[in-house]
Amino acid sequence: MEFITANYLLNTKTAKELYAYASKMPIIDYHCHLSPQEIYEDKQFKNITELWLGGDHYKWRLMRSAGIDEEYITGKASDIDKFKAWAKTLSFAIGSPLFEWSHLELKKYFNYDGLLNEKTYKEVWKLCNEKLKDLSARKLIKNSNVKVVCTTDDPIDDLKYHKLMANEKMGFKVYPAFRPDKVINIEKENWNEYISKLENISKTKIESYDDLIKALRKRLNYFEKVGCKVADHGLAYVPYMEYQKDDIDRLFKKALKGISLNENEIEKYKTSLLYDLSKEYNKRNWVSQLHYGVKRDNSTYLFKKKGVDVGGDSIGDSASIDKLANFLNLLDKDNKLPKTIIYSLNPNDNTAIDTVMASFQRGPTISKLQHGSAWWFNDNYDGMKDQLKSLATQGYLAGFVGMLTDSRSFISYARHEYFRRVLCDFLGEIVEKGRYPKDEEKLKKIVEDISYNNTKKYFEF
Amino acid sequence: MEFITANYLLNTKTAKELYAYASKMPIIDYHCHLSPQEIYEDKQFKNITELWLGGDHYKWRLMRSAGIDEEYITGKASDIDKFKAWAKTLSFAIGSPLFEWSHLELKKYFNYDGLLNEKTYKEVWKLCNEKLKDLSARKLIKNSNVKVVCTTDDPIDDLKYHKLMANEKMGFKVYPAFRPDKVINIEKENWNEYISKLENISKTKIESYDDLIKALRKRLNYFEKVGCKVADHGLAYVPYMEYQKDDIDRLFKKALKGISLNENEIEKYKTSLLYDLSKEYNKRNWVSQLHYGVKRDNSTYLFKKKGVDVGGDSIGDSASIDKLANFLNLLDKDNKLPKTIIYSLNPNDNTAIDTVMASFQRGPTISKLQHGSAWWFNDNYDGMKDQLKSLATQGYLAGFVGMLTDSRSFISYARHEYFRRVLCDFLGEIVEKGRYPKDEEKLKKIVEDISYNNTKKYFEF
Amino acid sequence: MEFITANYLLNTKTAKELYAYASKMPIIDYHCHLSPQEIYEDKQFKNITELWLGGDHYKWRLMRSAGIDEEYITGKASDIDKFKAWAKTLSFAIGSPLFEWSHLELKKYFNYDGLLNEKTYKEVWKLCNEKLKDLSARKLIKNSNVKVVCTTDDPIDDLKYHKLMANEKMGFKVYPAFRPDKVINIEKENWNEYISKLENISKTKIESYDDLIKALRKRLNYFEKVGCKVADHGLAYVPYMEYQKDDIDRLFKKALKGISLNENEIEKYKTSLLYDLSKEYNKRNWVSQLHYGVKRDNSTYLFKKKGVDVGGDSIGDSASIDKLANFLNLLDKDNKLPKTIIYSLNPNDNTAIDTVMASFQRGPTISKLQHGSAWWFNDNYDGMKDQLKSLATQGYLAGFVGMLTDSRSFISYARHEYFRRVLCDFLGEIVEKGRYPKDEEKLKKIVEDISYNNTKKYFEF
Repeated sequence: MEFITANYLLNTKTAKELYAYASKMPIIDYHCHLSPQEIYEDKQFKNITELWLGGDHYKWRLMRSAGIDEEYITGKASDIDKFKAWAKTLSFAIGSPLFEWSHLELKKYFNYDGLLNEKTYKEVWKLCNEKLKDLSARKLIKNSNVKVVCTTDDPIDDLKYHKLMANEKMGFKVYPAFRPDKVINIEKENWNEYISKLENISKTKIESYDDLIKALRKRLNYFEKVGCKVADHGLAYVPYMEYQKDDIDRLFKKALKGISLNENEIEKYKTSLLYDLSKEYNKRNWVSQLHYGVKRDNSTYLFKKKGVDVGGDSIGDSASIDKLANFLNLLDKDNKLPKTIIYSLNPNDNTAIDTVMASFQRGPTISKLQHGSAWWFNDNYDGMKDQLKSLATQGYLAGFVGMLTDSRSFISYARHEYFRRVLCDFLGEIVEKGRYPKDEEKLKKIVEDISYNNTKKYFEF
Repeated sequence: MEFITANYLLNTKTAKELYAYASKMPIIDYHCHLSPQEIYEDKQFKNITELWLGGDHYKWRLMRSAGIDEEYITGKASDIDKFKAWAKTLSFAIGSPLFEWSHLELKKYFNYDGLLNEKTYKEVWKLCNEKLKDLSARKLIKNSNVKVVCTTDDPIDDLKYHKLMANEKMGFKVYPAFRPDKVINIEKENWNEYISKLENISKTKIESYDDLIKALRKRLNYFEKVGCKVADHGLAYVPYMEYQKDDIDRLFKKALKGISLNENEIEKYKTSLLYDLSKEYNKRNWVSQLHYGVKRDNSTYLFKKKGVDVGGDSIGDSASIDKLANFLNLLDKDNKLPKTIIYSLNPNDNTAIDTVMASFQRGPTISKLQHGSAWWFNDNYDGMKDQLKSLATQGYLAGFVGMLTDSRSFISYARHEYFRRVLCDFLGEIVEKGRYPKDEEKLKKIVEDISYNNTKKYFEF
Repeated sequence: MEFITANYLLNTKTAKELYAYASKMPIIDYHCHLSPQEIYEDKQFKNITELWLGGDHYKWRLMRSAGIDEEYITGKASDIDKFKAWAKTLSFAIGSPLFEWSHLELKKYFNYDGLLNEKTYKEVWKLCNEKLKDLSARKLIKNSNVKVVCTTDDPIDDLKYHKLMANEKMGFKVYPAFRPDKVINIEKENWNEYISKLENISKTKIESYDDLIKALRKRLNYFEKVGCKVADHGLAYVPYMEYQKDDIDRLFKKALKGISLNENEIEKYKTSLLYDLSKEYNKRNWVSQLHYGVKRDNSTYLFKKKGVDVGGDSIGDSASIDKLANFLNLLDKDNKLPKTIIYSLNPNDNTAIDTVMASFQRGPTISKLQHGSAWWFNDNYDGMKDQLKSLATQGYLAGFVGMLTDSRSFISYARHEYFRRVLCDFLGEIVEKGRYPKDEEKLKKIVEDISYNNTKKYFEF
């Protein structure tokens, strides 16, 4: 039984026609969690279990929900037994994005047409492992028609592999992204230790808030030289609390001494630092990404047994939309607001985010404020449609920078294909319901722009 | 290419049949922001740019999202250059309500069948401007089959134009609506100044809370004489805090002295005043409207440059549904609750509002509590369908008072057509999915009632 | 006009095929509010008004929204006049679940094919009343293919009727469920009185928190002996506040003395008691149900006139998703988390709940954490589809325990039919849109499991 056909997810004639344009466009994956070292070293995979189940918390969660013993998920069972458990779980996962992604990956990277289940798992295991002998990190990226990959990097990272790759002809570019969460999270135990590391690598004594900014500025320059054009922030919510510059210096010094700050002090510090960093991004014409709305490491059991990013996260309590608006205004009122992409993990925030964004749009950039593509738990059929619908209704969909993988996997580019199919289906439905004319020229441009051109233009790669 | 056809948005046979009934019904536009002076003076428009882009913050936001320079939006560019920029922006706005409204207006008021874009803008410019010579405020209203228009007026307004129009034969009636936001917003800087104006116009010395109520009662009587039957409140959220009558008088006097109130005091005052006004509306058999959930003037940049209502607003933080229920109960428990229409800007509130309303419904009025039609950022295809779905599921859709424009534009009656098409499509889908029988007689009545009859009956015009 | 046909709600070929499997499965109604006494005594109904309108607040709310006088709803009007008012109201209720449920019940229990309205009400009245002579509580349950019914019972209940029924051959089993709300709601006026009753029935002096747990443990044992396998909690929100065991004992003793607790104390007590009870459920392998998100008795008018559960309830303010996650973790970290079903009345919580659940899933139980079927105000077409969509996307739909009635009515099993039709339609759409293969064997198993097998296995009946 062939599951992924040429017209997969394309439910209207218009959708099919539009996907012909979309499918030809290259990929800029402007936010992911690939390992620069693994790309540099052109990592290979010993089998499909390592590639698929080695680090994919989406898959782990599904298996746990299906009652599979942890032994067969992240435990000591053999790779083929894990694969069997996965095959069985997956085969019943109707409505799950994993069912669709996995079969799309099998088709795209292993040319497997059929269904994965407890009857076929052995033939799939053999087929995939055979093909994996000829595949590697770089080949997977290149064959996916990827032009640019942006990794996610700590300000104190030496970017060794990025620098090495800058001189290689790989058929695609790998740039770092600046993710200063550790310097922002002043409430965390290891913050002081982190500041020391920042002192060392930036060769800047950090004794005041101004010193901190100086040190960070050096790191921003360092990243910029390696081609960085993107920053990224992982936040519980976008902070906003009014503060005096003096306050910040005072409480920063307090924290340096190891004295705990109270909640208001923490939020003031975060507001201030996110403000100052954003000004720097704006000055450098970088894009700032704000990811928020996550509650991390819910399960102490999983955390103790497996660590972070193992499937114990969820959507958190609603973030304040007022704070988001006030924070953006703080920068915008002096025309210091960088190009910014906003992602909330809570799908209920879609419309509110789009209405806030529209309050701060300003040319000449097309859609300077962007509503990030459906993220993490929303990165699926309905999540994507909801985000597209909200953005099209409240904003200007034609200016959208579209999809990113946000992934640790070298075969996650199948999600770009998935997104483009959903996008074309979404547009096709609007057209065939008579809400937008069947204007080939315009529709072609919209599809090609959202797939690739907008991203290239917006990030200025 | 003809875009707006007779069956626009009508996706089923049933929908088409029902729209034949809906399209014949007159309009009662029970809430809008038209200028009584402009109606009285029968304003004309020098060109389509003045009519369309002169004050429409929806359009401005879309242009800003498309990266258009402010010069071509609200700035000094020529009217035709602005129109060109708008035409280009609009032509790519797939999924935006503006694409649909604008083409519906071109068809309805200018008999233009085609598409507006950078290639056609000149012919549209010419055509519209030619037709505008024969059009005027009154003609536009009358030709739209409008029977009643309710404007939005400050309690201290002298209603001069309403009084003048009361004696004219215009083919439609214009009534004021009572919107006492300025007296409720005790935290605002200009509140004391406003109280003085109220003193003057009501010829009532205001030295206590009781005096305030006395003065407002005079204004209510004044409005009533000019035909007013509607009040309207713009609120961040529906307030509810328990209070003693004495407290209110004490804190009112404090505020009169220019002393700032704390948050609790402000909420007590607002609860009390909204309660006392609502009792007055109930006594007069008026309809009370509660609009909430907005965060206004997000952008200091826009506010400084352009003022209020220029496109810098958004959905605000979630309003408390508990407070809404408690406030309604405060009135209902003594049978003082007026007919009330509830509008939240946050579409996530739909189901909660409908479940609260159902707790307080009481005959003989049909649907005494009404869930207002999808408002502002929700006034579009999906917003309308979501509101209809929620109301039909939790309440009694057949008793709904339906559409209003909430607009500053004389051609926004196209939105009533848009609403009726969406309504018929919504009902048609339920019928054709087999969830309600194809009972012509009942369906005809439901459609005609929601389009017109319910409104007439509910407001008692 | 035949309204309920064989293919009612089944919009695709696949849906129709799947419903053939679903319709054959028996019913386990694991949560309802039927009266054990009425089942034991095999209650009969004097007419359709008693059966339908005697206690159904859903119907009352619809009638009130339609402007019907309370006299004809819960008042002194004659039964046939009430039925007429209901027939008229219902006939216009397009989009309301009541329209669909009621006609499904007429078809299923009275074999009436037509429409109920002001023209047909007399023939329906006669037909139903005639049939009711041959119907009774037990017959209605048995004829509905129900195997197990779980009622909802107070810990101090003597379970007299459950014990009597244990020895009867009724064709179905009736088990109690343990619902200790009254002992948890320490802030309520009658809490102390309730503790005294618990002392008496458990023959345990309650002078400390440990005594309380001892007394409750006795009642848990008592319930267990009568076949109880389910607990249920009605909460405003799932509580979570860190506490010391000593604190709880101290504040418990304070409350015993009649001293009011502050908000933090109340939440600590509730967290502690829900934690200790949940550990007991886990030890006994019971299923814990958490129902939250309700604001009860909004209308003082209705409450005074009619009491509780009369249609004055609504969705309440958003419950904290962080607290839910933290509370589950408190149990899970020591592997004391019982099988738990989570129901929020706010449909906006769907995705967040599913993401929290997936953080705590653990074999060997299939879907140990369950997202309860769309509840109360969500127990309808769109509510069900939304819950299914969210669960399928974020979790493992194939492991879902499916429908329950939560009802006081002996003919509410029609809702199981409604749910199964919606489920098959939901699955059919995914298949026909190409998102899951038409794999008969798998689909059959999924449908039969969700309809019946999963419930049997999960509860271990």
